[in-house]
This record gives sequence, structure tokens and C-alpha cells, in this order.
Amino acid sequence: MQTRAVYPGSFDPVTNGHIDLIERSAALFDKVVVAILRNADKTPLFTVEERVEMLELATRHLENVTVTSFTGLLVDYATRIEASVIIRGIRAISDYEYELQMALMNRRLSSTIETVFMLPAEAYSYLSSKLIKEIAQLGGSIDGLVPEDVRKRLAGKFKQK
Amino acid sequence: MQTRAVYPGSFDPVTNGHIDLIERSAALFDKVVVAILRNADKTPLFTVEERVEMLELATRHLENVTVTSFTGLLVDYATRIEASVIIRGIRAISDYEYELQMALMNRRLSSTIETVFMLPAEAYSYLSSKLIKEIAQLGGSIDGLVPEDVRKRLAGKFKQK
Amino acid sequence: MQTRAVYPGSFDPVTNGHIDLIERSAALFDKVVVAILRNADKTPLFTVEERVEMLELATRHLENVTVTSFTGLLVDYATRIEASVIIRGIRAISDYEYELQMALMNRRLSSTIETVFMLPAEAYSYLSSKLIKEIAQLGGSIDGLVPEDVRKRLAGKFKQK
Amino acid sequence: MQTRAVYPGSFDPVTNGHIDLIERSAALFDKVVVAILRNADKTPLFTVEERVEMLELATRHLENVTVTSFTGLLVDYATRIEASVIIRGIRAISDYEYELQMALMNRRLSSTIETVFMLPAEAYSYLSSKLIKEIAQLGGSIDGLVPEDVRKRLAGKFKQK
Amino acid sequence: MQTRAVYPGSFDPVTNGHIDLIERSAALFDKVVVAILRNADKTPLFTVEERVEMLELATRHLENVTVTSFTGLLVDYATRIEASVIIRGIRAISDYEYELQMALMNRRLSSTIETVFMLPAEAYSYLSSKLIKEIAQLGGSIDGLVPEDVRKRLAGKFKQK
Amino acid sequence: MQTRAVYPGSFDPVTNGHIDLIERSAALFDKVVVAILRNADKTPLFTVEERVEMLELATRHLENVTVTSFTGLLVDYATRIEASVIIRGIRAISDYEYELQMALMNRRLSSTIETVFMLPAEAYSYLSSKLIKEIAQLGGSIDGLVPEDVRKRLAGKFKQK
Repeated sequence: MQTRAVYPGSFDPVTNGHIDLIERSAALFDKVVVAILRNADKTPLFTVEERVEMLELATRHLENVTVTSFTGLLVDYATRIEASVIIRGIRAISDYEYELQMALMNRRLSSTIETVFMLPAEAYSYLSSKLIKEIAQLGGSIDGLVPEDVRKRLAGKFKQK
Repeated sequence: MQTRAVYPGSFDPVTNGHIDLIERSAALFDKVVVAILRNADKTPLFTVEERVEMLELATRHLENVTVTSFTGLLVDYATRIEASVIIRGIRAISDYEYELQMALMNRRLSSTIETVFMLPAEAYSYLSSKLIKEIAQLGGSIDGLVPEDVRKRLAGKFKQK
Repeated sequence: MQTRAVYPGSFDPVTNGHIDLIERSAALFDKVVVAILRNADKTPLFTVEERVEMLELATRHLENVTVTSFTGLLVDYATRIEASVIIRGIRAISDYEYELQMALMNRRLSSTIETVFMLPAEAYSYLSSKLIKEIAQLGGSIDGLVPEDVRKRLAGKFKQK
Repeated sequence: MQTRAVYPGSFDPVTNGHIDLIERSAALFDKVVVAILRNADKTPLFTVEERVEMLELATRHLENVTVTSFTGLLVDYATRIEASVIIRGIRAISDYEYELQMALMNRRLSSTIETVFMLPAEAYSYLSSKLIKEIAQLGGSIDGLVPEDVRKRLAGKFKQK
Repeated sequence: MQTRAVYPGSFDPVTNGHIDLIERSAALFDKVVVAILRNADKTPLFTVEERVEMLELATRHLENVTVTSFTGLLVDYATRIEASVIIRGIRAISDYEYELQMALMNRRLSSTIETVFMLPAEAYSYLSSKLIKEIAQLGGSIDGLVPEDVRKRLAGKFKQK
Repeated sequence: MQTRAVYPGSFDPVTNGHIDLIERSAALFDKVVVAILRNADKTPLFTVEERVEMLELATRHLENVTVTSFTGLLVDYATRIEASVIIRGIRAISDYEYELQMALMNRRLSSTIETVFMLPAEAYSYLSSKLIKEIAQLGGSIDGLVPEDVRKRLAGKFKQK
């Protein structure tokens, strides 16, 4: 059995919590595709291209991981790349509720794609890209919470302002 | 990559919710071992042997699924059978809390075994072995909630009393 | 439309939170039947007969409320007394999860009986029969949390010991 | 007792989950008023008039249901139309928390109006108007999740863009 | 031991729930600093200066309470004023999740500052500044939910519109 | 202000999560009394005397901490020792719900005693005495989860069986 998994998200920017989950997924599935959602409505801090760069640098030690981006419905994209698994990390109950709703809807949209939930290391249980950006903007230390490359880029973004 | 998964539980008795999850797991992993916990403290309705029989009958259409039982720590058993994944179904928030606690403890006990959470079909979201036994005992209909074989065995158990 | 509602429970003993909910239900439905579950397995503090007496005294100001007891499945009892509504009070999230599970199962057992959830006054949000018994046993004051008649009976029970 | 219930919401657009709840409410209460909140701040997809049309079409098989819209406080509107019950559907824990807060505040604003919570069928447990719009916009299938009339109107809205 | 606590928030405007929590904190800690976050991104109803005035009036009976405002990271501000405790009120589960995430992040940013959670009186469990503003804007009564001074200012704000 | 805090529990046995919380409390309050509930109903693994010994050894580096035991209502005990604060650790939502209920009831029983909630380090977020005992009994490693003294005593207890 060749099982291909997709790990979708905004990754604006990638955190050590995301990387932890990618590593865990790469140990279980034959191939893991990290897929950045191109969302026309939102105004991200980093462009999709920057986010691909940061993710590729952070996952280059993992042979069975590739980084890409997509538009449209996740299940359509998963079908196109022949993935049968959607990976989602769950940190908190509020995450879980939303994730459950999405997983059930995705199952309805495509019955052959399964969502599996995985836990990041507890040291990252409180991490989110949003929180990282807030702290970086206010000048707080994010050492150990994001890759060094991301830390520098964040410093650059907020220095410009 | 050959990924072997273990799906532990009491299965006293197996419900259609369990079977739904076993089918979903069997589609993702190379091998799925359904493992009944032999728990000296509890007084189950069905013996471990009866539970193995019911599970084997209910999963005989799935080639990569085997049924067995174990004692001791789950992570020790998983290591012994070379499983790298523990599968757990989550129905409700209260499940989820307990499952999270166990998953983090199991990760601490063995860092190479990963817990993944999967959702049963929403039609089974309210099912539990405990509830099935209560309804069967009170004479309620459990058609469609357990395999026919299990339904008959439950009827037999509660007729005897 | 004549809508008959059943409010099931153990009521061991009735608290002011229960009475608050009975009063709210009696204002919405044509008839409210408070139904004590006769549960062979448990060892209650008060007999079913004592619990009926306490509930009847506490609800005698409500003309459309009657107190009774039942065995077996709640939906079978509700069908027998031609009730189309099951009333449940919800205090906390953990309540809510269990209640949801029961409501979905009861709907499956009888599609014509609907569960509605109502909120007790926030002053009673932390009340439970179990907590009342623990406090009474340890000599704490339960004034204002149960009817005066119940308070006296509790004092009597724990004095005897 | 003549009990009139109000079922408030945005219904932008109505889903099969809403209709399921309206049908359940119509079986319990003498009259059910589906009341669309006219909210000046938001930018809905459908106008209030379109939403009234969709709801009227979807509920024309229910004799004791009427569709209307309102501005201002819900409890003031409920008082004006002599409703003593507010109906709310609960799908998830996060819903429930917000609903609880609103129900307690509404009770404080008017002690004679009671909020009752009801469960949609589990097949609709993950449905929301917001999710329907997202999927329709991305070209996903929403068959069986909204009435046929609503499906066509959504297709029309997103084709125009 | 001289323990100084900081109670941060937006207080737009202060409610009786906030005041209840300030009173409870003032009974436990040597000094309580109520600190309004100056947040450049948001568009509050009241200016920071108005909010300071309302809080000072509402807390003038508490000798060990002062009111101030801050920008930047909360832990940096706490360190600057030599506070070792951050006080947070928790009303609901959704609050609690967010608060937990912030508390763990703040502990990471400064290991010597501890977050403690306290409960407002249950009569205020459903109160929030946001809800107060909504009700005041729609002409509902907020007597008993905010100080009289705040009630008048809210009436003034919404009359002008 | 001299603030005395009580940290109640079963501590059967004390874990590193408990000790973490005691250390955090000792940094905030003038005196912390760790109080073991003598509960006639339960059958603990360790006697109250053993539990006092383990706690005293584990907290001897903290000058303002004492260890004791009590029977009866917690608020009565707190009043007797002139404590104005009850400290409770919260790990999970299910904890939180029960803790909230107890805190509100305790406030009703004694309005001058306040409950504050604190977070253990996230490394201990999944720890409980019950889980420790289960793992020790099954031969799993509990290094780093309990003090060395407790680890040895647990080994002794389960060797005897």
C-alpha cells in the first residue's frame, strides 16, 4: 500500500509546531505533501512564494516531504494528487470542534479521503502563526518557536514598518 | 514504508462504530491489529475469547486486519508487534480529553509510536459499547448499531438472566 | 396542540435547580410529568417513594405537573404516557456531551419523541444532587439549595449514621 | 395553553439543518415564527427579501410556521409577537457556549421568555450557512445540504462573479 | 512577601463583572494594577482616557488598586512595574482555551510571572463588554450590569448616533 | 497583607505536576498549606501518613510550605487555618468544569475564601496520580514524572503484590 498524505494550511509563517507535525507524518506515510492554501480573501504577512521557501528550507531533511500550494476545495486537490489522507494537527478543544466539522464535510465531499488528527509535541501546544506574528511585532523573543530562517524574516518584516 | 497500526480497546462488544473505524484504518495502513485489552480488574459482559470471535467475524472481509488480545502497557505491546501507529476513534469532547492525555503519556513512554485520531461516521457518533448493553438489557432495539451476530449474542446474554 | 413533556431523572434528592427547571417547563408545555427512574443497580439515599413525596410537595403549586416513576427505556415510557417531549436541564459542558449522546440515541429509538434542553437559573448552575449529599453529610449548610422539607430529611438521614 | 415560539437567525441562506429544526419545532409548539435578523452591520450574500422567499418556499408544507424579519433586541421582538419560547439549534460545543451566554442575557432582559435548545439530525451536525457558501463558491457539491431552490440561487450568485 | 498583580484588558467599557474580579483580586494581593491595553489596531467605543476615568471611578473604594494603560508585550509591562502575577477572569470554556494558550506563551516569555485564573460571581458569568455595547445600542436595559457612570456614558454615545 | 493559601488534594501519590504547582504557589503567597483530604470512603494506595512523608520530603526546599491533612468541608478547614485562598491546578477542560462547580459551591459556603486556578508546566499537563499508578503497576517507566522517593515507594508497593 502506498499512502500519500496532504497537510494543508496557511503556514504564515511555518512554526516549530508545524514542523514537528510534518516530521511525525513523514514517519507514518509514504509521501507527505505540505499544501499552502492560496486564499484570495486574506491579507497574509508572507507571500505564498515566501511561505514555500520557508517550508522547503525547514523540511529539506525529510526525503518524502514536498511543499506546494493550491486553490479551490481541499478534497479536489487531494484527489488530483492521489492523496487518501488529510493530516490535521489539534492543539485545543476549539481547534478540534472546527476540525471535526471540516473533516465531516470533507468526507461528504469525497468519501475516499480520510482525515487523521495528530498531536504536536506538548511544548508547541500553545503555538500558532497568529500568536508568533503578534509577539514578533511587539518585539518579544520567538527563539525556539520558529526556525532560525523564519525568525530572521519576521525581524525583517517588522523592522521595515 | 510498511506501516503497521494497532487499534486497542475493550470491544465489549464490538459496535458498528468500531467496525467503521477498522475499515477506515485498513484503507490507510498496511496492517491493522485490533487488540483487546485483557483487564484483570473489570468484569466484562463477554469473555475475551467471545470478543475475539465477534471481531473476527465482523472483520473477515478485511484482508489486512487481524484480531488479538494483550496485557500490560499498550506501548510495550505495540513495540512487540512492530506497530508504529496507535489508532483511536474520537466521538466527543470528553473522549478527546482523555485520549489526548493517554496519547501524550504513550508518546513519553515510547517516542517512536504515534497516536492518530480518526472519526467514525456521524451515524455512529453517539454509539458506545456501554450504551448498547444498557439498551439491549432494557429490551430496546439495537438493529443497525451492532453486527447481527453481536445482536443475537446480546439477546442470548440478557435472556439468560 | 396538546404537548405533553416528561422530565426524567434520579432526583435523589430534588434540588432547587430541578424545581426551577420544572417551573420553566410547566410554563411552556400543557402537561409536565416528572419521572423518577427506578434503577435496580444503584443504591440511592432516598427510596423512590420518598423521592416522589419530596417532588410532590415541591411541585404542588404547579397544576399541570405530576410526579411518577418508571422502569425500562425512557422512550418506551414516554410513548406509553403519550409524551412527545423529553426535557433535560444542562449545566455544564460535560453534562451537555452526555445529554447529546442520549438525545441522539433516544431519537433513534423513537423518532417521534424530541429532546429539548433548558437552562436552570445561573444561581443553580453548580448544583447537583450528588454535591448536595456530600455537603449535607459533612455538615455544611444547604439552605437555599434544596426545599426546606428536603433539607430536614437530609439532616435526618445523616444524623442517623 | 397556546405556546408561540420564535426561531431567530441570519439564514444566509437557509440550510437543510435549519429546515430540520423548523420541522421539529413545528411538531412541539402551536406556532413557530422564523425570524430573520436585519443586521445593518453585516454584508450578507442574500437580501432579507431573498432569504424570506427561500424560507417560505422551504417551509410551505408546515401550516403553523410563518417567516418574517426583525430589527432590534430579540426579546423585544418576541414580546411584541407574544412568543414565550426562543428556539436555538446546537451543533457543537462552541455554539453551545455562545448560545448559553445569549440565553442567560435574554432571560435577564425578559424573564418570561424561555430559550430551548434542540438538536438537528446528526447528518446536519456539521452544516452552517458559512460553510455552504464557501463550498458553493469553490464549486463543490452541496446537493442534499440545502433545498434545491437555494442550490440554484447559490449557483446563480457565484456564476455572476 | 509583597505580591503585585496586574489585571490587563480592554475594558471598553468596564462591566460589573470586571469590578467583581478587581475586588476579589484586591483582597488577595498587596497591590492590583488594572492595565488597559493600548491597541493601535482596534477601534474602541471609548478612548483609553475615558476608560481610565470609568475604571478609576469604579475602583476608588479600593485602596490598593490603581488604573493605568500600556503598550507592547504584557510580560514586559508586568516586569517593568514589578508585578509577579497576571490575573485573568474566566467565564466560559472558549475563554479558558484562549487564556490557557496566552498563559503558557507568557510563561515562556517570562518564567517569573505567573498567571492566575479567578471566577467572577455567577451573576456576571455571561457578561462581556461586547454584549453590553450591543444591548445598549439596541436600546436594551443594562441596569445592574455596569456601573451607573458607565450606563450614562453608553446612553450618551448611542444617543449621538 | 499576609495571604495564606491552601492546596488541597489526595496526593496518592504526589507527582512532579503537584510539586510544580506548589513551587509556583509558594512564590506568590506568604504561606502555602498542602492539605491531604482524609476520605473515609476511598481505598488509597498510600496511607495519609505515607503521603505526608512523601510531600514533606518533596517540599522541604520551600520554606513557606507546610504539609498536613484534614477531614470535613474544605472551606471549614480553610477558615480554621485562616487561609483566604484555595489553589487548584487545571490541566484539562474536564478538570476545569468540575473545578468551576466546586469553586462556586465553596464560594457559596464561605464568601471570604477565594479559589484561584493555576497552570502546571505543560510537560506535566497529562499527569495524574491515577495514571502514574496504572503505569507503575504495569511496569512502565515513571522516571521524571514523580520524585525519586515516590518512584521507589511505588516500585515497593507493586513488587509486594
